[in-house]
Amino acid sequence: MSKKLTARKEDYSKWYNELVVSADLAENSAVRGCMVIKPYGYAIWEKMQAELDRMFKETGHQNAYFPLFVPKSLFEAEEKNAEGFAKECAVVTHYRLKTDPENSSKLIVDPDAKLEEELIVRPTSEAIIWSTYKGWIQSYRDLPILINQWANVVRWEMRTRLFLRTAEFLWQEGHTAHATKQEAIEEAEQMNDVYAKFAENFMAIPVIQGTKTANERFAGAEETYCIEALMQDGKALQAGTSHFLGQNFAKAFDVKFATKEGKLEHVWATSWGVSTRLMGALIMTHSDDQGLVLPPNLAPIQVVIVPIYKGEEQLAQISEVAEQLAADLRKAGVIVKYDNRDTYKPGWKFAQYELQGVPVRIAIGPKDLEKGSVELARRDTLTKEFVSQEDVVEKVKSLMIEIQENLHNRARDYRDSHITEVDTFEEFKEVLKTKGGFISAHWDGSSETELKIKDKTKATIRCIPMGQKREEGKCVFTGNPSTQRVLFAKAY
Amino acid sequence: MSKKLTARKEDYSKWYNELVVSADLAENSAVRGCMVIKPYGYAIWEKMQAELDRMFKETGHQNAYFPLFVPKSLFEAEEKNAEGFAKECAVVTHYRLKTDPENSSKLIVDPDAKLEEELIVRPTSEAIIWSTYKGWIQSYRDLPILINQWANVVRWEMRTRLFLRTAEFLWQEGHTAHATKQEAIEEAEQMNDVYAKFAENFMAIPVIQGTKTANERFAGAEETYCIEALMQDGKALQAGTSHFLGQNFAKAFDVKFATKEGKLEHVWATSWGVSTRLMGALIMTHSDDQGLVLPPNLAPIQVVIVPIYKGEEQLAQISEVAEQLAADLRKAGVIVKYDNRDTYKPGWKFAQYELQGVPVRIAIGPKDLEKGSVELARRDTLTKEFVSQEDVVEKVKSLMIEIQENLHNRARDYRDSHITEVDTFEEFKEVLKTKGGFISAHWDGSSETELKIKDKTKATIRCIPMGQKREEGKCVFTGNPSTQRVLFAKAY
Repeated sequence: MSKKLTARKEDYSKWYNELVVSADLAENSAVRGCMVIKPYGYAIWEKMQAELDRMFKETGHQNAYFPLFVPKSLFEAEEKNAEGFAKECAVVTHYRLKTDPENSSKLIVDPDAKLEEELIVRPTSEAIIWSTYKGWIQSYRDLPILINQWANVVRWEMRTRLFLRTAEFLWQEGHTAHATKQEAIEEAEQMNDVYAKFAENFMAIPVIQGTKTANERFAGAEETYCIEALMQDGKALQAGTSHFLGQNFAKAFDVKFATKEGKLEHVWATSWGVSTRLMGALIMTHSDDQGLVLPPNLAPIQVVIVPIYKGEEQLAQISEVAEQLAADLRKAGVIVKYDNRDTYKPGWKFAQYELQGVPVRIAIGPKDLEKGSVELARRDTLTKEFVSQEDVVEKVKSLMIEIQENLHNRARDYRDSHITEVDTFEEFKEVLKTKGGFISAHWDGSSETELKIKDKTKATIRCIPMGQKREEGKCVFTGNPSTQRVLFAKAY
Repeated sequence: MSKKLTARKEDYSKWYNELVVSADLAENSAVRGCMVIKPYGYAIWEKMQAELDRMFKETGHQNAYFPLFVPKSLFEAEEKNAEGFAKECAVVTHYRLKTDPENSSKLIVDPDAKLEEELIVRPTSEAIIWSTYKGWIQSYRDLPILINQWANVVRWEMRTRLFLRTAEFLWQEGHTAHATKQEAIEEAEQMNDVYAKFAENFMAIPVIQGTKTANERFAGAEETYCIEALMQDGKALQAGTSHFLGQNFAKAFDVKFATKEGKLEHVWATSWGVSTRLMGALIMTHSDDQGLVLPPNLAPIQVVIVPIYKGEEQLAQISEVAEQLAADLRKAGVIVKYDNRDTYKPGWKFAQYELQGVPVRIAIGPKDLEKGSVELARRDTLTKEFVSQEDVVEKVKSLMIEIQENLHNRARDYRDSHITEVDTFEEFKEVLKTKGGFISAHWDGSSETELKIKDKTKATIRCIPMGQKREEGKCVFTGNPSTQRVLFAKAY
């Protein structure tokens, strides 16, 4: 834990991997591509969950739980969705092990316990949920259905990275059913808005809202809305998606409802999700070479108090002040840890909390006792100051807001300075190589062009930004006419 | 929903199944043995989770997340545990599907995507967690580890029933690591206490704390503590277990720590869990022939207000009073729903909320407007009274406490009157047949006797109660000497 991280400039990817492990966020497990989320990392995820859950309920959604497994026949019912996930799904074929007849300390799959129909471990739950909704929906009175699920899903990715791409990950998936197309579209847009607000206000991550091109859409969706964030290495990260699914799943599972007028119609659907991938976005938006930097909203510990002392008597004197301060801060709603462990030295503790991104560190030593002060250090700016003991609570309260805002502003400034308008393909390649970030360019709207650009540059269209002004122009690759700019980037 | 439930006397099991489905708690899914937990049922589970989570954190535990899959080689490392779960586990053998060459609209398992090592869907996580703890524990400084996980697990049960026994269920599993045997035993006992307090104070379910006999112990445990509840049909239900695992898993996964004195020793372990099975316990402790009865602590809706009206004008007048009342109740911390839907009649609503166990129903009609009153109905006693509008908030506040206590008392009285001391096997069989409940009898301590009794009566030893006085006696079956009574019952 005392080892320094690789500098971001030197090797961003290595820095990321080292940080995730050394800040005690997560680690690789004995299962290929699956991670263990450690308590400190999980505590951050819990804060995200709590806030999202609150926002979902505020917008009228309820939680429920659907099975982990999808029978193969249901899985393949919606063709595009099945096609999209078939290549990466874990398949349960047997339901029992038995003792190996050749080695009684070993177990083998019992060939007599083969399932009649294979079960897919859910990569996403549209299929199992829509087969269930069929039983719930008869008339317009049963609509809308506004349900969210917190769950684990599995996608057998070949190249995995902690939080960013793992075979198993945690997420929430909303699945809603509506009587009209318009209402479903509004729901999909509303939930993308919720994600954007959550990212900006709670995670301090600036995002661009937009829609995906056909190539980048969710398998089975008619429109995919997304929020796109920019990481410190100039690569984009899709932080959340919300899909208008049209009537595709209703048709695949024969889900119809009687309208007020008594006509039978197929139901309209949306789905939307964010995952533990957000942990990756959080890390790569705010952190630095010293380690994790956390916005106060997401910090499991907002303030740590470290005593600097020699001998038990001094510790007792400092503890008296520290414990009073901790109590006062807790009363003010701040999450405080007083770390008086004698198994670790103050220097070790400083480095550890810096690495773990605790927003504010307060050190109290014998001189502070004399002067009635404390030393207060900000993680976001790495600055220190002395504060009088009687002012600490107010100071910390305002810092919680200030640090949250500072991180947001810093990330937005970086992002804004990394959106580059280009009008030629030469420029496109040059910016991508030297600067990275989002490239705002005209595109002729064809999948073919998009794929050719991807092939030549590895950049994809991250989104067609929403609420953007129309602008006549020429496609940066083909020169064909275009009516608006789209955002390209290399992406996670 | 308007169909009456089968009476409990007539067919308890049928009553249970009908109630779970018609009160919108859960239903069977397209996947054999797996359930869909519907929003209303899930909202109750969320309340249980929130309270348990609070209690776990208060006792120093943190949440984390470990992989869904256990590689077969890890699964089989702790022999007894492996043996205990091998016969009912879902096995992932492949990681890809492909288009069926004989039918392009179908998918088949891709034989080229066979896993080198099969993965077991976790039936419990000791194996994967202890293989992880090996990397976390070097010295006494790393202990104790106090971790809990909220997760889904899979046990391929042949006979399933909603909430009580399902192939997939939701649970929490605590997994702790300690430096000493004593500390681990204290942890296991502490968590069983937490479960008992939760059941009694929060769920209003009286439980008996005890230890399991060797036959009934968790596979891999040295001691299993449990809380046992009694259902209305005289059958017992194990509502939670806490295991002292000794050094079994530490030895299987070679987890050692350096003591303060520098010696290397194996770590001591516990694990403990409760699951969505608690929903079954809740239902079968409190509910009646009219449907679910919920203690206020667990009610997603604590008070429902139903307007009784003819025409829009009357509805507007009633709504004014109802909405003010709802606001006042919310201010007092009560969860209220004002159901002014015009798509359903009051009678339908009354039946529905009765079926769903809403603790208090308030009806407001035109006469109430005149008199300044409301009609208030209690779900637990099925009694009604008129209450003046200005007294409603205070009345409801005190009812929330009163109903919670009443349900607890009622269940405890039933339970207490269904613990029967018997001293002969004839009596044993007679009580089991005519009255059910717990039978307190002497037992000679041998597994053989226990299994013979089970074989003859289907009754098992539910627990050896804790803190019970010693009493010399003779085994009810063999006549061999015994030092204390144990509790037998038929069980879920």
